[in-house]
Amino acid sequence: MSTVGAGIPEPPREEPNSAWLTDEELAWARGRMPLLYVEAVPVRVDGLGIVTQVGVLLRANSAGDITRSLVSGRVMYGETIRDALFRHLEKDLGAMAFPLLPASPVPFQVAEYFPIPGLSAFLDERQHAVSLAFVVPVTGTCEPRQDALEITWVTPAEASSPTFHAELEGGRGTLLRAALASVGVLG
Amino acid sequence: MSTVGAGIPEPPREEPNSAWLTDEELAWARGRMPLLYVEAVPVRVDGLGIVTQVGVLLRANSAGDITRSLVSGRVMYGETIRDALFRHLEKDLGAMAFPLLPASPVPFQVAEYFPIPGLSAFLDERQHAVSLAFVVPVTGTCEPRQDALEITWVTPAEASSPTFHAELEGGRGTLLRAALASVGVLG
Amino acid sequence: MSTVGAGIPEPPREEPNSAWLTDEELAWARGRMPLLYVEAVPVRVDGLGIVTQVGVLLRANSAGDITRSLVSGRVMYGETIRDALFRHLEKDLGAMAFPLLPASPVPFQVAEYFPIPGLSAFLDERQHAVSLAFVVPVTGTCEPRQDALEITWVTPAEASSPTFHAELEGGRGTLLRAALASVGVLG
Amino acid sequence: MSTVGAGIPEPPREEPNSAWLTDEELAWARGRMPLLYVEAVPVRVDGLGIVTQVGVLLRANSAGDITRSLVSGRVMYGETIRDALFRHLEKDLGAMAFPLLPASPVPFQVAEYFPIPGLSAFLDERQHAVSLAFVVPVTGTCEPRQDALEITWVTPAEASSPTFHAELEGGRGTLLRAALASVGVLG
Repeated sequence: MSTVGAGIPEPPREEPNSAWLTDEELAWARGRMPLLYVEAVPVRVDGLGIVTQVGVLLRANSAGDITRSLVSGRVMYGETIRDALFRHLEKDLGAMAFPLLPASPVPFQVAEYFPIPGLSAFLDERQHAVSLAFVVPVTGTCEPRQDALEITWVTPAEASSPTFHAELEGGRGTLLRAALASVGVLG
Repeated sequence: MSTVGAGIPEPPREEPNSAWLTDEELAWARGRMPLLYVEAVPVRVDGLGIVTQVGVLLRANSAGDITRSLVSGRVMYGETIRDALFRHLEKDLGAMAFPLLPASPVPFQVAEYFPIPGLSAFLDERQHAVSLAFVVPVTGTCEPRQDALEITWVTPAEASSPTFHAELEGGRGTLLRAALASVGVLG
Repeated sequence: MSTVGAGIPEPPREEPNSAWLTDEELAWARGRMPLLYVEAVPVRVDGLGIVTQVGVLLRANSAGDITRSLVSGRVMYGETIRDALFRHLEKDLGAMAFPLLPASPVPFQVAEYFPIPGLSAFLDERQHAVSLAFVVPVTGTCEPRQDALEITWVTPAEASSPTFHAELEGGRGTLLRAALASVGVLG
Repeated sequence: MSTVGAGIPEPPREEPNSAWLTDEELAWARGRMPLLYVEAVPVRVDGLGIVTQVGVLLRANSAGDITRSLVSGRVMYGETIRDALFRHLEKDLGAMAFPLLPASPVPFQVAEYFPIPGLSAFLDERQHAVSLAFVVPVTGTCEPRQDALEITWVTPAEASSPTFHAELEGGRGTLLRAALASVGVLG
């Protein structure tokens, strides 16, 4: 029976190429390489494609505080970016959100999260994560699941405000502004 | 008291600020300033936003020849780009095409058409036109109207082929390839 | 034989296809069709391409007030967008600015200026203008000419501030923010 | 003394947070999660920013064959995308290439490489890699180092040709075309 040192991933038991990492494997990877994420800003658009509302999640963070957040999650091994985007939208907004994924695979912004401040505008204490961020129109009903407690819909003007900006963690206020700018509705 | 020479626009008779130019006014403008156009490549997408089909028009050109073309038209005075895009999509694809205009107002390409070859990849004998080009998913039924005789749906691979490229006039084969590249499906 | 009413352009006297419009021709065009403009936000970048400074012009507007502004100007008949961009950068920043025009011809934003408020975020009392806006690194010395009185270099953080935003006319504060967002330095 | 199974990374001996992975750690990661890469298409531009030449590498692949390739490499733990881009440009083009990294951190394309064909246009037998691809003007002298044997400069028209397309492995011909399209010079 083999043992491994602290922080080293246990040997995967069943599936040699499982896309799912154990907690220990993930902890190990988080200290060794950048992890790939996708993020999404859900929006509602009018008949001409103009963004009329912006969806922001209320989510409990790891410290138990309620903070505003965006749809976000890791890209798994063997998973396309579109599949990851769709999976996390469904996880955070429910199965009836009916998101319209963009035809273009190019994100509006690439957010680089580092565990220490100063390297970029984005901070994630857990890891070095690189996040491809997209604006995604949704056409159905959003019913947040899992740890996303609630989705709030605000106008682009509200979402552009300094107070709103301050309520998003880790630089996501800046990312939200970049999202608004990319669709021409930053105030 | 001055009189108007050949090629100088007639005075507009009814509406001093009419968005619609008379033929003479348009002819005058075409030799004096760049005209603003919008162009659209209609596409069909799957549930993940991947482009599966590309729509190309068969249109009679001014010489009476049948050529392949894109959705295209002028932006009027006082009209937003989105309004112009919607109007020309409806004119060329019919009222039941249900286009999903992009949330982003930034075109995938800016095509500069000049009346003489060599200044750019794009040629328009009539005028200097600057065209903002968009990829637009359509969800309904397309029934071309007016001078657009037919819409043909082809796969991205077919649309990427050299033969197809050659059937589009004025550099629009190049524009179509740029459209395919912008949505990640250029072959 | 028709006579020309107020606001209708005089017949051009010398060059039938002159790119330069007389004041009367320009006035006529301004009430009839969207005019094509280019705008530029000059920036200084470090060795890794990160924007470290943003250049904003102090300019006297038509009312004689001193306001902040961006490099801006019309695209002439027969002129490419790059040529227009270069010409206006030289006009506003001097011949020694050495701008590095972007390899990509796609603007970071398309700003639609209308003579009446409410149609878009951008206002231009004189006309309906559609402006292709670019961020342009400059590597030399900027010495504003003509009506551009001075260029001020500020940090991206200063340029992101609400006070700064308010000092730009016609919605150009919003355009500046979009410029900052497009290069990843919006605060 | 702990032992670990085949394909499981050895415990790192010296630096707990080293950005550099051992061969075994890398092999393990390659079968568990998507790895983040950057790719660059070096170009030469004229005074107006128009791409006049495109640089393509001749490189020996793992089988010992000489193939055409792009500047490419992994993003390390704690490294920004710009730093990674600069490092790989220097590695592949030499210290005197003087690349001008783009002010915008958004890639022209995101290439998803999978170890099995059919999931995307890009194939990498070794791993699931997600690559952020940029067009980078270079202003100095390129002297390829390491495994990059030679750099060839071709015109955009040559780089657009089907024969050239076929000489790039793993879908990079498609990526090169998307690069050309993004800077408006795809033939």
